[in-house]
Amino acid sequence: MAAMGAMAAMGTLPAGVGALPPLPTLGVPGVPELKPLTRYEAMRLGPGWSHSCHAMLYAPNPGMLFGRIPLRYAVLMQMRFDGLLGFPGGFVDRRYWSLEDGLNRVLGLGLGCVRLTEADYLCSHLTEGPHRVVAHFYARQLTLEELHTIEISAVHSRDHGLEVMGMVRVPLYTQKDRMGGLPNFLGNSFVGTAKFQLLFALKILNMVPEEKLAEAVAATQKPKKPAIDQASGVTGNLPAAKPANELAVPAKTGNELADRAENQAAAQAAVEAAEQPVAGLESGAIVEQLAAVPAAEAVEQPAGLGADAVAEQPVAEPME
Amino acid sequence: MAAMGAMAAMGTLPAGVGALPPLPTLGVPGVPELKPLTRYEAMRLGPGWSHSCHAMLYAPNPGMLFGRIPLRYAVLMQMRFDGLLGFPGGFVDRRYWSLEDGLNRVLGLGLGCVRLTEADYLCSHLTEGPHRVVAHFYARQLTLEELHTIEISAVHSRDHGLEVMGMVRVPLYTQKDRMGGLPNFLGNSFVGTAKFQLLFALKILNMVPEEKLAEAVAATQKPKKPAIDQASGVTGNLPAAKPANELAVPAKTGNELADRAENQAAAQAAVEAAEQPVAGLESGAIVEQLAAVPAAEAVEQPAGLGADAVAEQPVAEPME
Repeated sequence: MAAMGAMAAMGTLPAGVGALPPLPTLGVPGVPELKPLTRYEAMRLGPGWSHSCHAMLYAPNPGMLFGRIPLRYAVLMQMRFDGLLGFPGGFVDRRYWSLEDGLNRVLGLGLGCVRLTEADYLCSHLTEGPHRVVAHFYARQLTLEELHTIEISAVHSRDHGLEVMGMVRVPLYTQKDRMGGLPNFLGNSFVGTAKFQLLFALKILNMVPEEKLAEAVAATQKPKKPAIDQASGVTGNLPAAKPANELAVPAKTGNELADRAENQAAAQAAVEAAEQPVAGLESGAIVEQLAAVPAAEAVEQPAGLGADAVAEQPVAEPME
Repeated sequence: MAAMGAMAAMGTLPAGVGALPPLPTLGVPGVPELKPLTRYEAMRLGPGWSHSCHAMLYAPNPGMLFGRIPLRYAVLMQMRFDGLLGFPGGFVDRRYWSLEDGLNRVLGLGLGCVRLTEADYLCSHLTEGPHRVVAHFYARQLTLEELHTIEISAVHSRDHGLEVMGMVRVPLYTQKDRMGGLPNFLGNSFVGTAKFQLLFALKILNMVPEEKLAEAVAATQKPKKPAIDQASGVTGNLPAAKPANELAVPAKTGNELADRAENQAAAQAAVEAAEQPVAGLESGAIVEQLAAVPAAEAVEQPAGLGADAVAEQPVAEPME
């Protein structure tokens, strides 16, 4: 929050006074920069400018996916009525409201129980295009319990199923297949500046290491991997994966298996591709199911399982 | 449900008995067909085959977006841990469980309060790729209240924030800009067969007219519209939009405005682009805000408003 306070304070200084530090930029290759401006500069824009305010609500999350992948933070976005992902917020009429009062008014319709202040201000950017829109962005750290309360509130809100089709958490990790998690998420469709603001906040607030952000963006810009063909969803071939029985060779514990990712990338990818427990299987039996559908699980809406369940039973069935 | 029952029954007949009707196909241009097979055929596949079962839960929805766009149905999908959209479900080990018992077991982890039966069976398809996976798909019609109960249950479930990052409803309408709603949604990233299954169910269950489905798919396959640039999310220019003051010319009521879409496509697009009420504005004041940010709202995470609010105040401010 210190960084945010500093930037908010900076925005209240007259432009050109002293030697202000340069405004932070995103600096992620492949993502065009939007022009940053201070809050002070933004407030001096004329009446022909429209002001949008959106907020990233997030919470430190000690949880581990599959007991092994750190979730880092829970970050809220929403699926909007128009089929795009965005942050809660909207336009604020500066003639009647402060940025924060206007933002809170919009948030109140969908989230109910959070009020942002100027201390939560993060940045302002000029948007692209012929219309004069300046996008203000806020970020508020909550506890995981507070964030969950907002998710519950959202599904009960007036907007649910109308303007907002559902709240989702942003996966901040990248699975060993280099697409699962944040890269795939960034391959979804975002409204306006939302994707830029997401990346900007993740970087500025040190929620994801900068090189991981760049890798995630780069992964979405490569020629699409067939297995995650975003255009058709069903046309691709499966990614290269080692035969199922190679999974089983090293008779290690789950953690050992997971920790030796360098030598066992293929096995790891198959494990991470897995998801909820396979229906109808417990412990040992699960292994055989995984062995029967190794990396196929990355493709075909997997039922999953954790690494532990796999390694407990090193002898797997062959694919046939 | 009659169609489903028929197909389920058909699947129980031995292949080649009598003159069975051909299995239904998707038939949407631009979406490669998956090979359909009867339930009977699928059940005869050998042990080298894996069976996945997923379910579309849906409810007729009499609601109107912005008081004007029929929502048709609420259809549930989920944002998964891997950043992809999918249906609830997973793999089922046929050695231990029936398809339905296995599916219900997986659903129980995340949804809690719905049990599917063979009557909900819709179709089976062979998936693409080197692995032998047959994907079974179910669809269960609920009441909107039942569906909402499941959404509430999901946010309280064990999987929430782990395997499932949130439930979302699928927008089934297409806004006048031809991208908002289902087309944009189809531009997101889906796992495996999920997008095919979504389109298949929407067609087979007559939830969306077939030509609308084809249009929505086609819209996502055109050279990307700059404003909805899915690759970068922020690089595009704005779509062509008429100046704000053209919005205000016809002094009609909201419904009249909405109904005259043929002549007022631009106005309509701007109206539909709008979202939640503009923060800090009521009725008449809202109009001026819309006039100040017409189609820009389609781009910059709009604060929205309904059609009525716009038309009540026909004289709008010019953009500058």
